[in-house]
Amino acid sequence: MDLELVRQLAIPSSSKIVMLVSDGLGGLARESDGRSELEAAVIPNLDALAGRSLCGVIDMVGPGITPGSGPGHLALFGYDPYVYRIGRGVLEAFGIDLELRPGDVASRGNFCTLDAEGKVTDRRAGRISTDTCRRLCLRLGQIKLDGVELIVRPVMEHRLSVVFRGVGLSGDLSDSDPLVTGQAPLQVVPLRPEAASTATAANRFLEEARKVLEQATPANMVLLRGFATAPSLPPFPEVYRLRAVAITCYPMYRGLAKLVGMDVLPLSANLDDELRALSAVYDKYDFFYVHFKGTDRAGEDGDFDGKVAALEELDKRIPAVLALRPDVFIVTGDHSTPAVLGAHSWHPVPLLLLSRWGRSDRARRFTERDCAAGPLGRMPAVELMPLAMANALKFKKYGA
Amino acid sequence: MDLELVRQLAIPSSSKIVMLVSDGLGGLARESDGRSELEAAVIPNLDALAGRSLCGVIDMVGPGITPGSGPGHLALFGYDPYVYRIGRGVLEAFGIDLELRPGDVASRGNFCTLDAEGKVTDRRAGRISTDTCRRLCLRLGQIKLDGVELIVRPVMEHRLSVVFRGVGLSGDLSDSDPLVTGQAPLQVVPLRPEAASTATAANRFLEEARKVLEQATPANMVLLRGFATAPSLPPFPEVYRLRAVAITCYPMYRGLAKLVGMDVLPLSANLDDELRALSAVYDKYDFFYVHFKGTDRAGEDGDFDGKVAALEELDKRIPAVLALRPDVFIVTGDHSTPAVLGAHSWHPVPLLLLSRWGRSDRARRFTERDCAAGPLGRMPAVELMPLAMANALKFKKYGA
Repeated sequence: MDLELVRQLAIPSSSKIVMLVSDGLGGLARESDGRSELEAAVIPNLDALAGRSLCGVIDMVGPGITPGSGPGHLALFGYDPYVYRIGRGVLEAFGIDLELRPGDVASRGNFCTLDAEGKVTDRRAGRISTDTCRRLCLRLGQIKLDGVELIVRPVMEHRLSVVFRGVGLSGDLSDSDPLVTGQAPLQVVPLRPEAASTATAANRFLEEARKVLEQATPANMVLLRGFATAPSLPPFPEVYRLRAVAITCYPMYRGLAKLVGMDVLPLSANLDDELRALSAVYDKYDFFYVHFKGTDRAGEDGDFDGKVAALEELDKRIPAVLALRPDVFIVTGDHSTPAVLGAHSWHPVPLLLLSRWGRSDRARRFTERDCAAGPLGRMPAVELMPLAMANALKFKKYGA
Repeated sequence: MDLELVRQLAIPSSSKIVMLVSDGLGGLARESDGRSELEAAVIPNLDALAGRSLCGVIDMVGPGITPGSGPGHLALFGYDPYVYRIGRGVLEAFGIDLELRPGDVASRGNFCTLDAEGKVTDRRAGRISTDTCRRLCLRLGQIKLDGVELIVRPVMEHRLSVVFRGVGLSGDLSDSDPLVTGQAPLQVVPLRPEAASTATAANRFLEEARKVLEQATPANMVLLRGFATAPSLPPFPEVYRLRAVAITCYPMYRGLAKLVGMDVLPLSANLDDELRALSAVYDKYDFFYVHFKGTDRAGEDGDFDGKVAALEELDKRIPAVLALRPDVFIVTGDHSTPAVLGAHSWHPVPLLLLSRWGRSDRARRFTERDCAAGPLGRMPAVELMPLAMANALKFKKYGA
């Protein structure tokens, strides 16, 4: 759906939408008993909620496509993830709460070790401490580039974020990281003509970095990859006419929410803390994006039981959200992370949408299988926001 | 689906498609017993039909989008309602059976009362009688505009339809209706450069109207809004290679059918009259659009029992259609109008498609829930015509 059309149909109102995103929610059956994480979990609150909600499963990007967190979240917020792209460098910057402006070019860096011939001997510089990384980043941050502002920030151990800010920059650049040892760092090459000046700035930075780090051991150079331009998106609050706020424990999700123009609360410590924050600001906003990381973390670790435990932890907090009586309450994920795969996957993500105006469902449990048989069937994630807006009675009629 | 592709695949044949559109068909459960209008109704014929038909639910425009009658019908006829748009002024003209040509600019007018300072004191001129409206329209119709033909027709009470016909006109115009009292009528402003000459014609008409109506009490002025260009659509009979006819009791639906190039029968008095007309012309056409208004009327009135009664009335006529033995028989709606909302809504619309070549269904009843669980699942309404064509064996193979 066209965001311009959304803008035409949206009407501000006092109704409230809570979107609870359980990261990596969708799972897969384990071999022992053929049950998925959701099927194995004891989640009476979610099951009861599913029974009176609209259920379905959502394709985050497209059938067969495994989304990163960026595309997954953009789709949930109603932005076509094929149209709006968030590169790796931008996501890395978000991960350390680095505020980007549209047009900034961000890259992922890592400190490395070069030998006397200038060839990479260790792409991670022996995994230097984060303290050392921080100290070296301060020195790199002193480098001056003509007409381009430089932001250098430590991430963790040997990893750093390098951002170029200026007019007319482009992230269409090749990596300087050769990705193997025994080779010299590469020149950064523009992948499109309009990226030529940014390539010059990046190469200039790398030359200067070489000088600055010459005496540093073992981190005597830095490699850059994943250059990406921070995209400019139609602001969520304007498109949907919503006062929107993000509540999360992780910087990366704050960054994604900021990128679409949501207000973001300071980082929470855990889910309980998030729900306290939700309650505290409930009167000030109409749309609440609440992020729960536990399910994805366990899924990524291949920890089936851990993911089951995370789901049960989530389930216990459902009554606290329901007590706020949101007009629309959505529980879903930004992608699947089946523990048996130990990674993000392409599987559609279970969805429930509670609304007074939804046609009730027969689903008895909040599982992949029951949701797939729900009245929403299988739908593109990008259509979720229009559906939420309709159920919150925040959309005008289309056409006469 | 691309209409050009439809045109390439369509082959004329003697098989017959009957599309029975029960306006506002889809509903929502009432609180007392959790049943929707279809679930509460005694509709044995529709239920039996559902049991041997392909069932599903259709999104008329898109998930979450509440369609007007225009977009809803265009989608049923296979025209993408995002591509082809029918403005309010055009629909108003259709409502009084005013025949428009592609390129005509139609607007909704209402007679109003101005005070001595020229400010609107009553936007409806005390709801003058339709007779007075008719008399004043005749006088307004005498106004001459340079190079633009003017058509002024009464609608009802204070409402009228004003159509500008000429070369290069555009409906991208602002309203002259200030929508509130205490203000003077507004100048009509072009919203795009190409609408400048149409704005001039509209303002000229309004100046002349002021003079013509000066002595009329209380209707001493007219306000215009909802300017829209009558769109030009690829003709339905050519695209689908169907001899198509519309049978309805309401002018607006005749207008929509004429716009897509269907033949239209004179207005019927009621559903029985429509079915007699269907039977009478059955040999002359291959496609029959039959419109039943009762369900929407009761839904709009918030009259749950009235909608149930309308569904039961419809159900009794199903055998009369089946007696004709159409090759494809479709029962669906142009949008939902749940009585509990008392308005059009975004909810998907139940659909059944009877065909000798359909995979039989498990649905036992013709309800929102049973249809949602049907083999067609949830699909865009714009895909219904291709499905009907296929089931009528009127489509060639695509590709070799």
